[in-house]
Formats: sequence, C-alpha cells, structure tokens
Amino acid sequence: MLHPQYDVIVVGGGHAGAEAAAASGRMGCSTLLISLNLNAIAQMSCNPAIGGVAKGQLVREIDALGGIMGAVADSSGVQFRMLNRSKGPAMWSPRAQSDRMLYAQHIREKLEEIPTLHMRQDSVVGLLTDSGSVNGVVTQSGQHIPGKAVILTNGTFLNGLIHIGEKNFGGGRSGERASVGITENLEQLGFESGRLKTGTPPRLDGRTIDFEKLEIQYGDDEPTPFSYLTKSIPDKDKQLTCWIAYTTPAVHEVLKSGFDRSPMFNGRITSTGPRYCPSIEDKINRFAERDRHQLFVEPEGWNTYEIYLNGFSTSLPEDTQYQALRTIPGFEEVVMIRPGYAIEYDYFPPHQINRSMETKLLSSLYFAGQINGTTGYEEAASQGLMAGINAARKIQGKEEIVLKRSEAYIGVLIDDLVNKGTEEPYRMFTSRAEHRILLRQDNADLRLTPLSRDIGLATETRINDFARKETEISKLKEFLSDYSVRPEKFNLLLEHKQQAPLKQSQKLPKLITRPHLGLNELFDHDPELTEGVFSITKNPLVIEQVEIQFKYEGYIQKEHEMVRQISEKENMSIPESIDYSKIQSLSSEGRQKLQKVLPETIGQAGRISGVSASDIAVLMVYLNH
Amino acid sequence: MLHPQYDVIVVGGGHAGAEAAAASGRMGCSTLLISLNLNAIAQMSCNPAIGGVAKGQLVREIDALGGIMGAVADSSGVQFRMLNRSKGPAMWSPRAQSDRMLYAQHIREKLEEIPTLHMRQDSVVGLLTDSGSVNGVVTQSGQHIPGKAVILTNGTFLNGLIHIGEKNFGGGRSGERASVGITENLEQLGFESGRLKTGTPPRLDGRTIDFEKLEIQYGDDEPTPFSYLTKSIPDKDKQLTCWIAYTTPAVHEVLKSGFDRSPMFNGRITSTGPRYCPSIEDKINRFAERDRHQLFVEPEGWNTYEIYLNGFSTSLPEDTQYQALRTIPGFEEVVMIRPGYAIEYDYFPPHQINRSMETKLLSSLYFAGQINGTTGYEEAASQGLMAGINAARKIQGKEEIVLKRSEAYIGVLIDDLVNKGTEEPYRMFTSRAEHRILLRQDNADLRLTPLSRDIGLATETRINDFARKETEISKLKEFLSDYSVRPEKFNLLLEHKQQAPLKQSQKLPKLITRPHLGLNELFDHDPELTEGVFSITKNPLVIEQVEIQFKYEGYIQKEHEMVRQISEKENMSIPESIDYSKIQSLSSEGRQKLQKVLPETIGQAGRISGVSASDIAVLMVYLNH
Repeated sequence: MLHPQYDVIVVGGGHAGAEAAAASGRMGCSTLLISLNLNAIAQMSCNPAIGGVAKGQLVREIDALGGIMGAVADSSGVQFRMLNRSKGPAMWSPRAQSDRMLYAQHIREKLEEIPTLHMRQDSVVGLLTDSGSVNGVVTQSGQHIPGKAVILTNGTFLNGLIHIGEKNFGGGRSGERASVGITENLEQLGFESGRLKTGTPPRLDGRTIDFEKLEIQYGDDEPTPFSYLTKSIPDKDKQLTCWIAYTTPAVHEVLKSGFDRSPMFNGRITSTGPRYCPSIEDKINRFAERDRHQLFVEPEGWNTYEIYLNGFSTSLPEDTQYQALRTIPGFEEVVMIRPGYAIEYDYFPPHQINRSMETKLLSSLYFAGQINGTTGYEEAASQGLMAGINAARKIQGKEEIVLKRSEAYIGVLIDDLVNKGTEEPYRMFTSRAEHRILLRQDNADLRLTPLSRDIGLATETRINDFARKETEISKLKEFLSDYSVRPEKFNLLLEHKQQAPLKQSQKLPKLITRPHLGLNELFDHDPELTEGVFSITKNPLVIEQVEIQFKYEGYIQKEHEMVRQISEKENMSIPESIDYSKIQSLSSEGRQKLQKVLPETIGQAGRISGVSASDIAVLMVYLNH
Repeated sequence: MLHPQYDVIVVGGGHAGAEAAAASGRMGCSTLLISLNLNAIAQMSCNPAIGGVAKGQLVREIDALGGIMGAVADSSGVQFRMLNRSKGPAMWSPRAQSDRMLYAQHIREKLEEIPTLHMRQDSVVGLLTDSGSVNGVVTQSGQHIPGKAVILTNGTFLNGLIHIGEKNFGGGRSGERASVGITENLEQLGFESGRLKTGTPPRLDGRTIDFEKLEIQYGDDEPTPFSYLTKSIPDKDKQLTCWIAYTTPAVHEVLKSGFDRSPMFNGRITSTGPRYCPSIEDKINRFAERDRHQLFVEPEGWNTYEIYLNGFSTSLPEDTQYQALRTIPGFEEVVMIRPGYAIEYDYFPPHQINRSMETKLLSSLYFAGQINGTTGYEEAASQGLMAGINAARKIQGKEEIVLKRSEAYIGVLIDDLVNKGTEEPYRMFTSRAEHRILLRQDNADLRLTPLSRDIGLATETRINDFARKETEISKLKEFLSDYSVRPEKFNLLLEHKQQAPLKQSQKLPKLITRPHLGLNELFDHDPELTEGVFSITKNPLVIEQVEIQFKYEGYIQKEHEMVRQISEKENMSIPESIDYSKIQSLSSEGRQKLQKVLPETIGQAGRISGVSASDIAVLMVYLNH
C-alpha cells in the first residue's frame, strides 16, 4: 500500500486550501494537502492585503473559529488600519497590508506545525469515486491516493486562460501553469460548470514613482490585530506607508484608445467579472461621468520596491497600460514589473453544494473558494475553513456545522452561495448581512469561539483567554450597571464636550449611550470608577466590548428580537398580491429588491441582500394587520 | 516608445541569471532581468546547499570578483562546513546548507538594491536580431523589448520534460511550466542544440524519519564565510545538524525491481545525465559490487520539516521510490513530499560560444549556465557572472575579460567548455584544474579582487578591505621572514608534539614548513612574536594566509614556474611517435590520459583533465632531452 488512506485530501494550497487543511488536520483527521507548488502555498495572487470592509469581519470570524488567516495577517503585516472607525462599530473593519513573501512563509509554517497534516507537491487531474461517493484523487504523476473525503479548492487554475490585450495563454496565475483534467472529470460525473473572469493590476517598480506627488496614508498608531490571540503587532512602530493616486481625464482617454484591442470589449472574454472589483476600463466605461478614480499605491513587503496598484486591474494591451500609467500624476517615469491581466477560469455554480460545502451529487466531495464562484482571499478562507470542519465532522460521524446568517458573515456567505447562487464573482459586503449590527468585528469571538471549543478547533490558549474575557465582560457589566455617575465629577467634562450637564446622579450605562462619549474618557475624572474597572480587567478589549454593548444596547436588543421573530416567522407567507409601493416605511432599496424578488415567505424576504432588518420589521407589522 | 532600449537583457532568474544581472547592473549598464516567476528568483531547484569540493572554490572566486552568491550563502546558511580540512589547503572547500526560502529571498533583495537593474515577470519566446547581432527579445505577452546584448540563462526550462517512471509531462522544474520557443528560434538562426538530462531526489517529511538510526553530522564550530566581506555568520551557534544514512542490499533489490519501468533503462530517456551526480539507479547499476551507498539527509531550512535526500536522485516509478525508501534503516515510516524525477532539457553544445561567453554565431548574445551543458548552481553562477561582465564590457567598448586556467577555477570551467565541449552535464572538480595548488579558496581575493576593482565591480568596502589585507599580509611576511625563533622558546612545544628540537635559532618561515605546526601555536610561547604579529594585524585570515604561503612556498613556487613554462612552451610540439609508457615519472592517470588524447602541443597537454602540473614538468624535461 503505497499511500495510506487519508481522512481528508485537500486539493489546492491557496487561501481556501490552507484553511481547509489546517482545520481538518487540527481536528485530528489525517489530511493530505496537494499543491502544484509547495513554495507558493497561500500565495497572495492579487492584492497584498487582508481584510477590509466586511472582509475584515470574515477574518475575525475565521480566527474566532480557530483558523489561521488572522494570526498570519498579524505576523506578516506591514501596515494596519481599522476602516470606518468614525462610523458605528458594526462598520468597523480591520485591514492590513501584508508582506507577500512573509505571508506565504508563515502560512506554510503554521501548516507544518500540524502533526496530522501532510503535504504533497503534485497536480490532481481527476477524482476516484465509488457508488456516489468520492474516495480519492488521481495525480499527474500517476498516483491514485485514497481519501475518505476530498476538498477541491482550485482557485483560478481550472483551465485558467490569461488575457493581456490581444494575447492569451494558459496559466493558473502569472508565471504558473493551469490545471487541466478536473473540470472534465467533474462534468463527466454530472456537474455543471461555468466560466468566470477576474483580473489583477500591473505590479510597479517603486523606484520609478514620484511619491511626492501622491497623498500619503499612514497606518494606525495602535494597530488592532486580526487574531484574538495576537497580543500586539510586531514592528508596529515601523509600519510602512501607502499612498493614494488619482487617474485624470487624460488617463481615461489613453485607456479608451485601447478598447478596440481589449479582450473585455472585443468579445474575446465573455465570462463575467467581479462587479464590485471592476477593471479600470470597466470603471471608465460604466462611470463615464467621473473624471477621476482613486488608486491605492501599496507596498508588497518590508524589503522590496515592488508596488501593487490597487484599483487599476486591467487586461488592456500592455502598450495601453504603460501609456495610461505614465499619464497618471506621479507615474510619469513608471516601470512595470509585470502587466495587469485578466484570467478566465472554470467554476461550479454553487447551487450544487449544500450549506456544509459538500456537493449534492457526490458524497464526501467538498468545494471551497473560487470554484464556488467567489472572489477574495477572505471569502475563500471562510469556505475552506467550513469545508475542512465539515469534512472532518462527517468522518468523525458528527453532524455538520452550518452557521446561521444571524451568527456570522460566514453564514451569510455560504447561505447566499447555496440559495442565491452567483453569476459573477461573489464578494462580501456589510449590506449582504441583514443582521450586521450583531456581526461585528469586535464580538466575533463571543459569537463563535464557543463553537470552536466544542468542535475541537480552539487551542487551550484560546479557550482560556476566551473564558477569562467572558468572565471579565460579565463582571464589568455588572459593576458598571450599578455604578452611579455623579454630576460634580463629570459636568466639567460634559461642558467641555458641549454636552448637556447631568442634573442628578444616574447609572453609568445611561450616560454612556450619549454619542461622542467614551468609557475611557470618564476614567480621568473618577478615580473610584477607574479603580473599580481596573480591579476587574486591564484588557482594553474587554472595556471596549462593554462600552459597545452599553452604547448600542437598544439597537442590539432590537436586532436580536428581529432575529427571533424572523426565525419564528420563517414560514409566514407573503401574499402574491402585495404592493410594496404602498408600504411607506420600507427603505427605498428594500422596496426595490422586494418588488423584484417577490419572496414567498418572511424567511426568504430576510435573506434578500439589500433588505434590512427594519424592512422586515415593517413588513411583519404590515402583514399582521 | 513602450520599452527603453536596455543595455543588457538577462533571460532567466536562476543562479546564472541572478549573477549576470547583478554584474551587468553594478557595472552601470541598464539591465532587465526577465523571469517566468519573480517570486522564484534563484530558487534552489535541487539540493539546498552551496559550495563543496571545487564548487566552494568557485563561490569564493565569484565573491572575490564582486558576485552575490557568496554573501547570500552566508546570510541564508543553516550549517557551514569546511570540507577536506585534514588535507592540504588546495583541497579545503567551504560548503553550506542553505535555508531554501531565505536564499531566494536574499538574492532578490540583493538584486533590488541595484539602481540600474529592472525586473520583469514574463516568458521570452524568441530573439530579435539584425544582421548577425541580437538586439532584443520577444515575450509571451507579445512585447518586443530592445536590448544591446542578451544573456540566455534558461536552465532546464527549454522544452523541459519531467519523467517519473512511465509518466512524463512538460515542466521546467517541479511545479513550474517549461519554456517553449527559444530553442526553435535559435535553431532557425543556425545554432546546434542537444538534449541533456538531470535529476533530483525525493523530498521527505522529516517528521517521519527516525533520526536516531542515522549518523549525525554537525557544522563547524567556527564557520568560514564564503564572502570576503562577511565578518561573521549570523546564528552560527544555532546551526542545524545533518545526518548520514545508508542504502542496503535489500534497498538495491527493491530499486532493481523498478528498472523495467524506469525511463533510464527502458529507452524513454536517451539523453546523457551527469556522470558524477548519478541517480541511485545508475549507482547500483554501475557499481553492482557495492552493497551500500551513502545518503546525506539535509534540512531545507530553519523553519521547515522538509528534508532533501542527497544521493538518492531517481526517476524510478513512485511506488518503487517509496518501497526503496522505506527499506532504508531509519526511513521505515517515511512520507514523501514529492517524488524524485528526471528532467530532459535542451542545451547548446558550448563550442558555439567564445571564452567571453558570447556566441560565435550571433554577436552580443551570451549563454550562461545549463544552456551550455553544465550542472550545478556554482558552475551556473560563475558563467552568469562572466557573461554579465563581458556583456557590460562590450557595451562600454572595453575588451573582454577571460580568466586564465592558472588564475581561477572559473577560467578552467569556461576554457573546458569552450575547448573541450561537453556531452554530459559538466561539473567542476579539483582534478580539472591543473594548477589547483594556486587556485585555493583562501586566496581567491588575492587572485581576483584586483580585477574586480579594475572592472568596477568591487564596492568601496571590498576595495578598502582588500587593500588593508594586502598591506597586512605584506608587512607580516616581511616581519616574520626576518624573525628568529630561538630553541629555548619552542623546544618544549616541539618535544610535546614529538618533533625534532631546534639546535639553534632559525628564521620563522623555515620552522613553519614543518607539518602539523601552525603559526598560532607559536604565539603562546613567544610574547615578543605575538606582540609583533598583533601590532601588524589582528585578522586571522591574514595570519592564515601568511602561514599557508610560508608552509607551501616550495610547491607554490614550483607551480608558478610551471605556469610560466607552460605559457612559454604553449606551442612546443609533441612528436606523434611519443611512447608515454616509457616516461616513468608520469602519474598513472596522467599517462593514461596523455595516451588517449595524444596532444599535439604542451599547451594542449596541460589542459587535459587528469594531467597534473608535475606530469607536464616531467614531459617537458623528457622532450628537452
């Protein structure tokens, strides 16, 4: 017996594959990760960054569940920013620029730490099946490797075809070969495949950019880690800067001059690209009225001059790319390291999988990542993690884990894929999560770490840290709920902040609901309060958590009530005759979407992206009368 | 004008390409390095080690000339050993295990430091030529990039075909695609191509090896750096260990059972492999009488369990590889990360280049590395360096640099390639260098740094360090030559070492010619001597250099005389009628080779590998009488 029977075989070593293999391995399953090139594990094939709006929330959830992306984003980050800090906490989204090489290296090191996980450099060309179930893979080198479950995470490699202007050639990523055989094999097995497109911008030689002409963008002074286990960011005082540049009407004119040779416009590419991550030619085409677009000028790492030009994804001919780039202020002398390109690849429309990530057609076969029609490292990693968890659970004879839409962005992601499908690369947004007020980056651990502990993914450190945090939160809430703030201590502060003074003592939670007033600000003015708090916790995240819970208690309660009602009223039917234009309190986006989809039940209505929780509340009130 | 006209375009980012680009760039030429994958620059595609017998000398020479390989081997090394320390200094050969990822990363960082060097990720598919001269390249992405000179360093990528047992598939290295188009283009231009083969052993999961059953091998306590600029090796106290394992007759039986499915034996591979780096199947086939072969078990880096099994290169079917591996004591449970394989690739027999590395057919086109039929990182880097230097010199209108066989191993290498050609992958050995007594690892800087300074490659630090070292050597020699050692100071030491006591004072150089007596040993016994030496230098390498020069003065003088005579007698003819069996003082290897080649002149005789300098002396004496 040449190869042992593995519990789980993961095909592909990108962001989905790495999480899948780590989860399955850490849950005690003998796992084999097969990748075309083990030196390119978790290669950041597009932007050198992790997180961002809604994506940062996904990373926090991945970490809370025991995944690896967050910790590695922390250890390989060169700049950290919490986006949307000025908005409500549901919108706060961590984002980090990564050192591309370090990120890949640290993911590999994480994988190597897992005793039950093995790696193999090879290319999978087909599946072994037996009576409706997958039971192994066939590799290019001719090996038949048996496995009880198989997770496919092929990214853009399935019959990948790269386009630059009028040129096209096979390839899975720039400089890497495509993967051939799996699509054909799956089609023979009865799967339906489709074709999607994505793209990437040119990489630039930073020595040839005049940064003086660009807007500078610094990282946060106090960076917030992605991982609940990261105590502090290494080299946080040496963070790199990014920059912002702008296109001009002249740049747009140059870009347009290449349209007749663009594979996007001359019919060579027919597959659909990511609407919300459009190419620069798409942008100037679709938003013809705008005379400039923002470009983010991002370093690729600590020790390289390579620059990623975020926002300039393109498959225009290289001469057009060059001329357009050199028309951008600050880029007059720029030299490309490699041109942008578009890539077409096979995917499998995700109505073919269950919410456990297992395919409906073939038992024990799981799909995760771009193969399901998504785009983005974080979306891929989320699916990989859940596929890894569920493959391991199935082998261990345990029931599958499905996250609810009210529990996690990951739940929203998978529910959307399975129930709505996708005809273009699917990207996560906060607007897709109807319960986003509950799905915050600050509470991903409170939402998900108990599950991680129960399924055996959380390490002892995580379990202990979490238990301590939970206890401290509960004690702090108890203490503060009962704490009276006295006018003489705080009226000076309130006056200074141009807020109404206190007329008499009140409980602290009431005071803290005032906008622009933080718990930390009170400490300076009340030694007794400070002492009480610090005797319970010194963890700023505990203090922040309690502050958020007090401050937004009203909203949060309302949302929880909504979740309860929706879940109760899941099957409450909506008459076909309903006229949404008559329901005045609906949001205009919600009304539009409801009118378009005409959901049959409240449950279905609640899952429509763009239909908010308050829209549902309005709808239920309307239907009850 | 989309692309500027570069002075030099280097095609390929392996060990030859990296040195070529660094040299040309540092000499002030605008240089473009084009590689299929810029994340895989200077990838160690085979063993994770630099140096070794004769190869270590090459690295010291590369460094002395201002190349980059030595410094990076120092900064990325995980274990350092000076091989052959027990033999004469001409045989001392530095060798280091490298962290594979760190090596590639540091080379890239070195390249990024060079202002005149640019990089591009792309695949070159053809050359642009004009009336007998190359003037640019054509890339897969459709670009025509003009260049005054082009250096091809394609390694094993030209129509690379990977074999594992009965399977074969296109590929340049494991996991990377082959490069197609250049061979065909060169053939159209009149070049003659050939086909060679090389191979690599399986990579293993170190967690599945029982190291207790293997012999352990430590690094040197005081590691010697490759680079003359490295003051000390980082983490020298944390060096990793290597191990030695052995095959057994049972292992050989298993291997033989796969011969009928081996591409080496069933006629599928017809091209020639490296004789001195044979596959394990070659070894058990050619040395059937040996019942075991040594295997070196080498770590791939600081933070990985991946293991390289040096000595087990194979293209046998994977099942045979696995069974054979698991029969090796200590490897009973071993798991492969990837199987060994053989690779066939195109090369261009090197009679087609001049000693400047420029091709005879096409002006300003240079070949370096495996494309010339060599094997080995060091051989590749040596050629890349010289091609880079000479391409830059040509553009600057300066005369070409050709190293003599008496000046450098690099000179021997290139002279052998150009004048003897090669029909199998050419590897460097000390025996190939007839003047190896002069070509030591300790004096590569004395031999070559003046040249590096003159051609503008040496940095100011190197020039200053070297000038100081030269001065100190000269002063120290002067001081010691005149220094009298007195019996009463040293006879106790001599007695202790069971050597004849001194009867009267003598000059220090005479005493030091005694075997097993080092200069350092004398210091303890003569404070005046010590003070005198240390007032001149505290650099141990200066002291070592002077010791070697004194100790081997006789041999060295003789060799210099030989070089002079050979150079004078280059054209002295040898009668056809000569009967070498009658010349008694010839070495038996020398006699055999002379008999076989029947050289026409003394110069030609001197270049035959295996014919030593003393053989030439004997021959000249014989012919003069």
